[in-house]
Amino acid sequence: MKIKTLNDLFVDMIKDLYSAESQLIKALPKMAKKATNPQLKQGFENHLQETINQKERLVKIAELLDISPKGKKCAAMEGLVKEAEEIISEIADPEVLDAGLIAAAQKVEHYEIASYGTVATFAKILGNQEIMNLLLETEKEEKAADETLTKVAKTVVNKTAASK
Amino acid sequence: MKIKTLNDLFVDMIKDLYSAESQLIKALPKMAKKATNPQLKQGFENHLQETINQKERLVKIAELLDISPKGKKCAAMEGLVKEAEEIISEIADPEVLDAGLIAAAQKVEHYEIASYGTVATFAKILGNQEIMNLLLETEKEEKAADETLTKVAKTVVNKTAASK
Repeated sequence: MKIKTLNDLFVDMIKDLYSAESQLIKALPKMAKKATNPQLKQGFENHLQETINQKERLVKIAELLDISPKGKKCAAMEGLVKEAEEIISEIADPEVLDAGLIAAAQKVEHYEIASYGTVATFAKILGNQEIMNLLLETEKEEKAADETLTKVAKTVVNKTAASK
Repeated sequence: MKIKTLNDLFVDMIKDLYSAESQLIKALPKMAKKATNPQLKQGFENHLQETINQKERLVKIAELLDISPKGKKCAAMEGLVKEAEEIISEIADPEVLDAGLIAAAQKVEHYEIASYGTVATFAKILGNQEIMNLLLETEKEEKAADETLTKVAKTVVNKTAASK
């Protein structure tokens, strides 16, 4: 029983997110490479930069908490990345692949929205305003990334894919 | 390359969701059993019934599409359930465990919200209004389940857990 307090659970979730962002930093370049739609390709490239910043933010939070952000493997992100890899390996048609990549990416964004939402609430309850603000900044970026994906999906990819 | 068209991708995602709901039906009773807060316990029990209905809705969709919903294992839900099991095995304090269970459940809900949102969009583009409506019904339930969890988290569990 490693987790005894809300603070322990909070630290555990920060480590989980650090692992999640690290895994995503490896996956996003592959997704950008496989994307055909220019908006989508650019979106993945932008989000890679954003994800690198988000990981840095977690490093800063770990410093503030005086903990190491390492030592945990996020099982959910492992599954989400595996799904994205399956999509890439099973779809040849570039437009259908774009639709599949968007679906995979939106699942990732929603995972992160849920997770950052929870840790931001925990930070608030634990009385750490500075950390809460850092986490809310990332949550806002993840929501914006999800909205961008919805926009790309609705305006370009799905219509093209359906026209086959 | 098994997926050639948007319809193939749609069918693949329906199978993925069928696997996800099936896995969740096995996980929710364990989560309900471990929950201490009565609202949370009841919430998990109610959501189990809802999840059973959602799986039935996917069976109906599969019949309408003349496909089998079986044959795929949702890797993401596998990871999400693994995370919930880790939470259960690592936390002894009942109130901290409740906070952890809510966090795990909200990640699951967000995964499903993203996934049902995508398949509902696909159904619309593929011109299948009846299936779209079934999927939107589930998406609405998942959003409501997420909101219920947020309410329980904010009003009860987190404050208690932080008071330690």
